[in-house]
Amino acid sequence: MTLNTPIDMHLHLREGEMLKTVLPYSAKQFAAAVIMPNLVPPVDNKNRLIDYKEEIVQNSDNFTPLMNVFMKEFDEEELLKLKDEIFAVKLYPAGITTNSEGGVKSIEKIYSVLEMMSELNIPLSVHGETNGFVLDREREFIDIYKKLAKDFPNLKIIMEHIGTSEMLYLLDEYENLYTTVTLHHLLLTLDEVVGGMLNPHYFCKPIIKTPKDRDEIQKFVKKGHKKIMFGSDSAPHSIKNKLKGAAGIFSAPVILPALAEFFEGDLETFQKFVSDNARENFNINVPEKKVELIEEEWTAPYIVGNIKPMFAGKKFKFKVL
Amino acid sequence: MTLNTPIDMHLHLREGEMLKTVLPYSAKQFAAAVIMPNLVPPVDNKNRLIDYKEEIVQNSDNFTPLMNVFMKEFDEEELLKLKDEIFAVKLYPAGITTNSEGGVKSIEKIYSVLEMMSELNIPLSVHGETNGFVLDREREFIDIYKKLAKDFPNLKIIMEHIGTSEMLYLLDEYENLYTTVTLHHLLLTLDEVVGGMLNPHYFCKPIIKTPKDRDEIQKFVKKGHKKIMFGSDSAPHSIKNKLKGAAGIFSAPVILPALAEFFEGDLETFQKFVSDNARENFNINVPEKKVELIEEEWTAPYIVGNIKPMFAGKKFKFKVL
Repeated sequence: MTLNTPIDMHLHLREGEMLKTVLPYSAKQFAAAVIMPNLVPPVDNKNRLIDYKEEIVQNSDNFTPLMNVFMKEFDEEELLKLKDEIFAVKLYPAGITTNSEGGVKSIEKIYSVLEMMSELNIPLSVHGETNGFVLDREREFIDIYKKLAKDFPNLKIIMEHIGTSEMLYLLDEYENLYTTVTLHHLLLTLDEVVGGMLNPHYFCKPIIKTPKDRDEIQKFVKKGHKKIMFGSDSAPHSIKNKLKGAAGIFSAPVILPALAEFFEGDLETFQKFVSDNARENFNINVPEKKVELIEEEWTAPYIVGNIKPMFAGKKFKFKVL
Repeated sequence: MTLNTPIDMHLHLREGEMLKTVLPYSAKQFAAAVIMPNLVPPVDNKNRLIDYKEEIVQNSDNFTPLMNVFMKEFDEEELLKLKDEIFAVKLYPAGITTNSEGGVKSIEKIYSVLEMMSELNIPLSVHGETNGFVLDREREFIDIYKKLAKDFPNLKIIMEHIGTSEMLYLLDEYENLYTTVTLHHLLLTLDEVVGGMLNPHYFCKPIIKTPKDRDEIQKFVKKGHKKIMFGSDSAPHSIKNKLKGAAGIFSAPVILPALAEFFEGDLETFQKFVSDNARENFNINVPEKKVELIEEEWTAPYIVGNIKPMFAGKKFKFKVL
């Protein structure tokens, strides 16, 4: 089974030693990835972005980082300077997830930025959660997505890592809304986090939700909806920090083997989900890269550096060559 | 504010050193408590029960343990021997909570025991959860409660520690159904567990649920429903075991100060909730004990032995004398 130019549309690589540890897993399986900017300090200006991109390039081969910049109240000059260096601008509502304390407190404050992005054809990537009750946060954000989609009809908006199935119905309602789906929201439910013993390693934001949400996300992905793209949201934290309550799942090592099983031999839909949909929706041009999976038992790593990966120790039917 | 003979209708005291550490907090605030039998091995026979009761009596003053025995396929002789020593028989569906692996796998298997209990006027205490999706487990158990209530109309059945508000409506539908409500299901939501950083200290079974569930439980408790009784389900685990994922909240140190604030001066309803309802519903006769609360700022302990209590470090307006 050969995939052509798979792209991870939502990836956290961190920096320094952590980056060196985790990046090889993504670079092995993907031709490119959209890199999230929520570092400390955030990647919110050109110099920081160029340096961060360089760090990724230096530590990988044949792998294209598509850079996201952290949303702030950019002026036109800053945005013009960034335009050719970025894939999208990432909007974090303030305080919602890891290192988002410096995020946007009021959507209205960035309306002029969104206007400019729309004119410059820069996509908007959104962590769509309110500060409400944890299971309702995505649903409560739906009205904000609708308002953004209507107010900026020429702005391409990505609803990142959706875990609430109702949001899938926005895709056909609004031409300019797209979505990414993670491996964990596709395959798991809240049972993995709090159903047995408490499992910090499956704790993430947005929290993984109900079987109904998971099943409906699976249905939409299996029918190959063009506006749904794979974005792992692989987000490594040390085991120490996970035990202190940090949110994020390190899924990078197991992505393609797990998806190969999920698609049960439907390579066409698999290919669309991990590559074609993204490339066509966003005109992404990156060097072609073939990634081969062979049918051979493969065991997911128990530990990677000081990080416990998703599906640690689980046996898969496919192995990435 | 003076409470007359408060009773905790659902308490875990553990054994040995742990018991010595936690028991004083309950004995200070309550005249009596219903003691849960899920030890290792379980308290499922008369000798073990007598020994356990003795351990509690030896380690407290002016405090009456009302003993529960762990449900198994008792014959009539065993049950007759236990009758005068116990308050109720506790039914744990197998594998649902801490040390419930030896619980009941099929309700039908204990029908003859329930028949005998009904004749001997021994109440049934139930951890009402299925093995389904974590947020649905209590709701899915409703049909089992209904069936038990109908099949054994003379058996008093306690739906323990309810966190799903729909179950409150069974109380008026079935004369022989009663319920206990914990401090944490009364005051908190799932936000405390997974809404910010992951917080293992508020992880318990049944999992704390939605604002809607909490608000409706509060409404029923505030209006003083006679069949709703306070049962803390205070369930201490060492911090080490909590970090390994053990379910349970150690609320014992903060119960009356927290409830005093909740009832906002409505001593009549407070008294019913923590005492009169239980004594009247189950004809509980224990030595009278007055417990006084004074209006004085009091800070909940940050740590008790190797256990982190509920509301650790929180300031309360009332203090138990």
